[in-house]
Amino acid sequence: MTFPPAEHRARIARAAAAARGEGFAGVVVADPANLHYLTGYNAWSFYMPQVLVIDATTAEVLFVAREMDAKGAHRTAMLEPHEVLGYPESTVHRRDTHPFVWAAQELRARGWAERFAGGRVAIEGDADFFSVRSYLSLRDGLPEWEFADGHRIISWLRVIKSDAEISLMRGAGRIVSNAMAVAVDMIAAGVPQHELVAAIWHAQIAGLPGVDGDYPAIVPMLPTGGAGDTPHLTWTASPLVEGEIVSVEIAGVHRRYHAPLARSVAIGDVPRDLDRLSGITSEGLDCTLEAIRPGRTAGEVADVYWSWLRRHGLEKNSRLGYSIGVGYPPDWGEGTISIRPEDPTVLQPNMTLHVIAGMWMSGYGCEVSESIRVTDDGVEVLTDAPRELIRRPGSR
Amino acid sequence: MTFPPAEHRARIARAAAAARGEGFAGVVVADPANLHYLTGYNAWSFYMPQVLVIDATTAEVLFVAREMDAKGAHRTAMLEPHEVLGYPESTVHRRDTHPFVWAAQELRARGWAERFAGGRVAIEGDADFFSVRSYLSLRDGLPEWEFADGHRIISWLRVIKSDAEISLMRGAGRIVSNAMAVAVDMIAAGVPQHELVAAIWHAQIAGLPGVDGDYPAIVPMLPTGGAGDTPHLTWTASPLVEGEIVSVEIAGVHRRYHAPLARSVAIGDVPRDLDRLSGITSEGLDCTLEAIRPGRTAGEVADVYWSWLRRHGLEKNSRLGYSIGVGYPPDWGEGTISIRPEDPTVLQPNMTLHVIAGMWMSGYGCEVSESIRVTDDGVEVLTDAPRELIRRPGSR
Repeated sequence: MTFPPAEHRARIARAAAAARGEGFAGVVVADPANLHYLTGYNAWSFYMPQVLVIDATTAEVLFVAREMDAKGAHRTAMLEPHEVLGYPESTVHRRDTHPFVWAAQELRARGWAERFAGGRVAIEGDADFFSVRSYLSLRDGLPEWEFADGHRIISWLRVIKSDAEISLMRGAGRIVSNAMAVAVDMIAAGVPQHELVAAIWHAQIAGLPGVDGDYPAIVPMLPTGGAGDTPHLTWTASPLVEGEIVSVEIAGVHRRYHAPLARSVAIGDVPRDLDRLSGITSEGLDCTLEAIRPGRTAGEVADVYWSWLRRHGLEKNSRLGYSIGVGYPPDWGEGTISIRPEDPTVLQPNMTLHVIAGMWMSGYGCEVSESIRVTDDGVEVLTDAPRELIRRPGSR
Repeated sequence: MTFPPAEHRARIARAAAAARGEGFAGVVVADPANLHYLTGYNAWSFYMPQVLVIDATTAEVLFVAREMDAKGAHRTAMLEPHEVLGYPESTVHRRDTHPFVWAAQELRARGWAERFAGGRVAIEGDADFFSVRSYLSLRDGLPEWEFADGHRIISWLRVIKSDAEISLMRGAGRIVSNAMAVAVDMIAAGVPQHELVAAIWHAQIAGLPGVDGDYPAIVPMLPTGGAGDTPHLTWTASPLVEGEIVSVEIAGVHRRYHAPLARSVAIGDVPRDLDRLSGITSEGLDCTLEAIRPGRTAGEVADVYWSWLRRHGLEKNSRLGYSIGVGYPPDWGEGTISIRPEDPTVLQPNMTLHVIAGMWMSGYGCEVSESIRVTDDGVEVLTDAPRELIRRPGSR
């Protein structure tokens, strides 16, 4: 376990208090990052239904998972045996029933139906691993509960990191800086994309001495050449081409804490349009990072970049970044703070953000980003790579 | 694109026909594997809401995705521009609205509300990336539609593979066999777990000459020593220990097609209990594979292994395997056929299965598996590794 049990109990108590503050009697948590944050639980079991139910009044919890996973939950989570409930394998992947039909009955038998009777129970309506059938099974099995969207109430608890969490994120930053250096060294015309990704992935997982690598919530993304206008493409077996740009967006991960980093790399001479766009993007990121400090809102920070773009006749209609920390597939973003003009969140020390100046035009694009921590008076940049269009020699 | 547009049109036509057969007017598809199967679409964009809407009567489709992803959909999907609809960035990660509130209005404006008015529309109630808010936004925005669970109607279309798909899966089998050999070579007392995983991952992505690797839907799982009783643990930075077993469960992936493979590896001398368990498990897998042929049910195949275990005083209450093919995180299983006593599915040629004899006891466990194709009269094993407890020398 990364953190001691007492730390997790304190986090659960904070979650319960936050839920009470919003008028909830209970919370149903499915997001694996939230489960990990609250309990330490860490296994690739989220492809089956699993939830942590929190009593907002008493901060008591019950973790419901597949029997084979529940049995080993104590290996990563600080939960006591009586706080873990395994549903039978016979309920899995069935047309006529669902694990949470069973779970609802079991919750009732243990008195949980009554605990929240007539009260509002927060669900994670945006969570990826709380399926419609999971929701409907609980709703129909526990009609005493009034289910309502909790609007990421648990995720919001995670936005300000402890110093211990920051220390893990610094490790993640070192890993990704090294992985980016490995990538840049290898980028050359003729190198098959998948071989480049294999080398990146090795660096991500091997980590560095004293900083072991963990799996990233998102695989390396590698928009290349004309496909540089499409941000979330992965890779092919095609060789890299001279005169093109390859954008590399990857994260370093240390014990589930993420530090993402993106750079565009030019192979030989690239068109002037791209050169110009890259320059504006990099300098825009410089200005933006200088503007970050406690007391400013995420929206005010976004305005700095938006103004910069306007001054150069450009525009951007996607976010400039988002809150980061613990991540599980499919996203390393926390889903809370967005750096965009309309976000009113006031920045505070030890918030951590991935600031990504991605410009996806038509038929080309470029990306440059940093993972940062908000300090008492500015930013600490957790990642380290030349903040400009990186150039690799061509053969011509 | 792996398959020609005409192949995808034929698959969509089959999907529409299947939906009509079940009395559905339309289908809403969110599972990334189903999206890829139907259209070729392939990007790491499923962490944002996205669905393909199919008209069961006409086989017309509309793909709704985030604007920045919709713009580049043509790079991997065979969809025409008029079949793609991008929702504005301003609807993303908002408390007061949702991308599918916008999508429902847009569907209405394009006449889709009326198309299915009074009809049943199939949703994927088990899909990971069709969130409760996605569902509620469509339900509330399109009250003319009667939403009903489609019970994996699209996934079931995928269980019998074409010869071209089988050829991709053979490639995946070669990749994972090589990755397992790399792992076995490296396993020794003192090797940090994450360094072993880094080497495995490199082999998975680099692939083999002529067979490029793609990302697996599940990261390498590495239950080790006492934690061998817990199937879905990933890894730590701890060194491997002499006298213990490490179980390696990984997949080879070629152009999104998966072939998983699991083996347990003993470092030096391991306790007799483990030796005995491994022997029974491996021989049980032999018997089971011999029992697979067209016309048998998945349940009858499971019975062979269950009987074998009973004869040796053991039992298993989890599945012995499942259907495989295209996969995206978090699961490489198709969620259709389960090899367990109560599954009535009749096996047919070109069904592909991961048959995994995993025995998770208390404080120890072992795993041995193969990816197989059902042939006209038996099985073709797609994976290749010694089918027994693999032994690595200890230093004692």
